[in-house]
Amino acid sequence: MSVKTQFARFESLPLDCGASLGPVEVAYETYGALNAAKSNAILILHALSGDAHAAGISQETGKPGWWDNSIGHGKAFDTEKYFVICSNVLGGCRGTTGPASLDTRTGSPYAMSFPGITIPDMVRLQKMLIDSLGIKRLLAVTGGSMGGLQTLEWAVAYPRSVVAAIPIATTARHSAQQIAFNEVGRQAIMSDPDWNGGDYYGKKPPARGLAVARMIGHITYMSDESMREKFGRRLQDKESYGFDFSIDFEVESYLRYRGAQFVDRFDANSYLYITKAMDYFDLANGRGSMAEALGQSSARFLVISFTSDWLYPSYQSLEIVNALRSRNRDVAYCELSSNYGHDAFLVDIGEQTEILRGFLASTFKERC
Amino acid sequence: MSVKTQFARFESLPLDCGASLGPVEVAYETYGALNAAKSNAILILHALSGDAHAAGISQETGKPGWWDNSIGHGKAFDTEKYFVICSNVLGGCRGTTGPASLDTRTGSPYAMSFPGITIPDMVRLQKMLIDSLGIKRLLAVTGGSMGGLQTLEWAVAYPRSVVAAIPIATTARHSAQQIAFNEVGRQAIMSDPDWNGGDYYGKKPPARGLAVARMIGHITYMSDESMREKFGRRLQDKESYGFDFSIDFEVESYLRYRGAQFVDRFDANSYLYITKAMDYFDLANGRGSMAEALGQSSARFLVISFTSDWLYPSYQSLEIVNALRSRNRDVAYCELSSNYGHDAFLVDIGEQTEILRGFLASTFKERC
Repeated sequence: MSVKTQFARFESLPLDCGASLGPVEVAYETYGALNAAKSNAILILHALSGDAHAAGISQETGKPGWWDNSIGHGKAFDTEKYFVICSNVLGGCRGTTGPASLDTRTGSPYAMSFPGITIPDMVRLQKMLIDSLGIKRLLAVTGGSMGGLQTLEWAVAYPRSVVAAIPIATTARHSAQQIAFNEVGRQAIMSDPDWNGGDYYGKKPPARGLAVARMIGHITYMSDESMREKFGRRLQDKESYGFDFSIDFEVESYLRYRGAQFVDRFDANSYLYITKAMDYFDLANGRGSMAEALGQSSARFLVISFTSDWLYPSYQSLEIVNALRSRNRDVAYCELSSNYGHDAFLVDIGEQTEILRGFLASTFKERC
Repeated sequence: MSVKTQFARFESLPLDCGASLGPVEVAYETYGALNAAKSNAILILHALSGDAHAAGISQETGKPGWWDNSIGHGKAFDTEKYFVICSNVLGGCRGTTGPASLDTRTGSPYAMSFPGITIPDMVRLQKMLIDSLGIKRLLAVTGGSMGGLQTLEWAVAYPRSVVAAIPIATTARHSAQQIAFNEVGRQAIMSDPDWNGGDYYGKKPPARGLAVARMIGHITYMSDESMREKFGRRLQDKESYGFDFSIDFEVESYLRYRGAQFVDRFDANSYLYITKAMDYFDLANGRGSMAEALGQSSARFLVISFTSDWLYPSYQSLEIVNALRSRNRDVAYCELSSNYGHDAFLVDIGEQTEILRGFLASTFKERC
């Protein structure tokens, strides 16, 4: 499946901070075909470092999408049956307006003059995109990690537009530990002299700081066990310990590689803005409590977590499930057994695929 | 109890790398009095960021020692009964020879020309100190975290000198995840331009990189639960979310404070050398297996771990216990219930104190 990223443009987006941002461009991709009733659309929401290229082979880069194992013919999100949409988030750096975009008022990149954005702002822009595609109701909204935060916001902010919501490996609000990991990543970036107060476009970007932030992230995405299985204490390309502060262990090599690789495709200021939006997000913000917030939703919910995910532990999914139950909402909960940690929703998809397929089929049959 | 750090000096220390280091100075403190039979000495070994000042009030700084709640009259290590010794590790920056020390051959600090050191090297130097104090056998050797690595090495390398060994919240070898966290800390330091290849003495030290490394460390020392209890999602000195990338949450304020504070008392090159020594340490190195290594010991063991310690999880303590059992060694194991994570051995000491007190008393009575 060869795909091409598309772009939508909107004159103005009202933000939670009170300001308006405009013009705003959104990068998105679609897979499969919208049916005549426009009742088979599924919106996929990406995680911190994701983008609009969720499936198929990109015509631009030749690379598969980040959830290609789950979107396509015969896969969990079956493009024979469903019309799947994925857009890059507001504040991102992969085609949607963000800190690296040109501010039309000044002709220069926004950098740190980009307004403070929130998860609800991201969702508001997605809603404008969905409206522009002529879709009134989404069969399902789903995503893992930060995609799960957006999924919850969609279900609560636009209840009449969401038939089913599938938050995966996520939470209704970050814990102190999650905020702490994000904060260290931000500090790594802002401590890099090349960050230069965010003003580095056209100059040397804060590559070292961003790489360190990404390395921290990668540790939290894996589990103790999956790291042991993947790397153990194996030495990298050497017979014995070097003590020259070059690479000794395979896990060091892996982290450095992933850190360096990330720098080529991600903007440090986007990392700052998006992680702040994640940390600030609390589904209860302005809505009383988590239960009151979820009481505004009318979707069927399927909540999925993974046993070895210590970044978004199962107890956070259970808080969502309990809040939904307390408002007598339709919710199914699956804690899937996996050793892959937070990455499980991306890589350990066997059981998840079966569950998603069944849930989507029954939702489509009963509600559309 | 007012205490003063003392210093011992040795002409030369043979190292695992084959080189010799000399002269070597060791900072140490003692509490209580050595009995006539010299049978009541306990050696306390510190963690990554610790120093010789384990107990009492320092005459130099006026500050209490890092384990003052556990060492003193009537405490776990009762100075009415025992003679307690604590020394700063080789490679450290708190009085013992390390990268910041002057190389007498050049008149300049060693910096990165300091030789690669290992946990066994640290222990070899401690043995020289204990010998110089005229002590042939230690009633007990103990320490948490990196102090536990040294404790294990002591029991295996000098079996006739250790009556009891008490490794706490530790492991016989770092996992891939533990190596990964240390590696990210090292990368944060080495990515700081002020690190300058380790050559920063008398200039601006790599404060930002070292602060980030320390922030990562602090997250791993606490548990998800203890962070939630201590900080939750409380905002710091503000009514609402700021989005100016200054501090929003209390946990951010705490981490930045602890990071900045650490920079004033710790040397970045020591951080690099010591964490590498920890990562490289494997009790089985050159000894076949963990069980074969521990089979060389003759001490009684008390192994302690904590339920919420995810940095040094209980399964690592159980590996030590099982290896000792497989060689029919005398070992007791306690997994203590605590929410404080890896920090528990320093802060949540109620049950630990009772267990240590009983174990030391029976060891002293039966073996000395």
